[in-house]
Amino acid sequence: MQLSKFSDYALRVVVHLAASPDRLMSTRQIAEIHDAKYNHMAKVTGWLVSEGYAESLRGRGGGLRLSKDPSQISLGALLRKLEEDKPMVECLASGGGMCLLSPSCGLSLALQNAQEAFFKTLDPTTIKDVIGLAPGMANLLGALNSGSTTA
Amino acid sequence: MQLSKFSDYALRVVVHLAASPDRLMSTRQIAEIHDAKYNHMAKVTGWLVSEGYAESLRGRGGGLRLSKDPSQISLGALLRKLEEDKPMVECLASGGGMCLLSPSCGLSLALQNAQEAFFKTLDPTTIKDVIGLAPGMANLLGALNSGSTTA
Repeated sequence: MQLSKFSDYALRVVVHLAASPDRLMSTRQIAEIHDAKYNHMAKVTGWLVSEGYAESLRGRGGGLRLSKDPSQISLGALLRKLEEDKPMVECLASGGGMCLLSPSCGLSLALQNAQEAFFKTLDPTTIKDVIGLAPGMANLLGALNSGSTTA
Repeated sequence: MQLSKFSDYALRVVVHLAASPDRLMSTRQIAEIHDAKYNHMAKVTGWLVSEGYAESLRGRGGGLRLSKDPSQISLGALLRKLEEDKPMVECLASGGGMCLLSPSCGLSLALQNAQEAFFKTLDPTTIKDVIGLAPGMANLLGALNSGSTTA
């Protein structure tokens, strides 16, 4: 099972911003570091701003920063929002999708329960935990950030 | 989060065959009923045969049938096999994928734990359960099957 590329990038941006709180990053810098298309990354950072996860400061020295403390960002809640309109299989699409078996099939209920277990496992994990789960993020980001162009 | 189209179709075929044990179905019939391309569905049924979930009987009156009792097919085990080579995000690809944060990021561990919770929820659920979870499957399939061309 796969998360969307949009969710993948959104997670990276949040982790990236959380681990470099002292340096504001532009969307272009983040896109460069992650070898992503600027337009795609701009949609991701725009979504994070509109959903209140990040804020964008204009002007010299401006850029993106998290608008919440990493310890207040639940990984489960973030992923639920990111994936809420992406049905796991057709029968979980709004209206039941196109699968002809939907009206009489128990798969949708079983898969919904499993998806809920997936999110529930991630609910208590915060972005602060994610950064702390593996050492060396600050050093890694220092090296990555210094390699990017300035805003 | 999404299952692959391949997994989606594989689940449908297994449910379909489990719910019509008295009628062997050809790949072409199943593809027609589910409005799928024949070539795609043939890969799915070929995989189910190669993995021992289904068998194909040749000749007049031949077709596909399950080679295991539906009560012996764990939904979790089936989905683990179907999805094992499809990483949820890049950092879960073999070799760590292309995400530069991988070496120092705790996301991969958190997502792996959540994925395991997803599969574990489905492990005790069998295809027999799936058919029993919603009523009317036999009637529905009777109507769908009678609308398809014969093998």
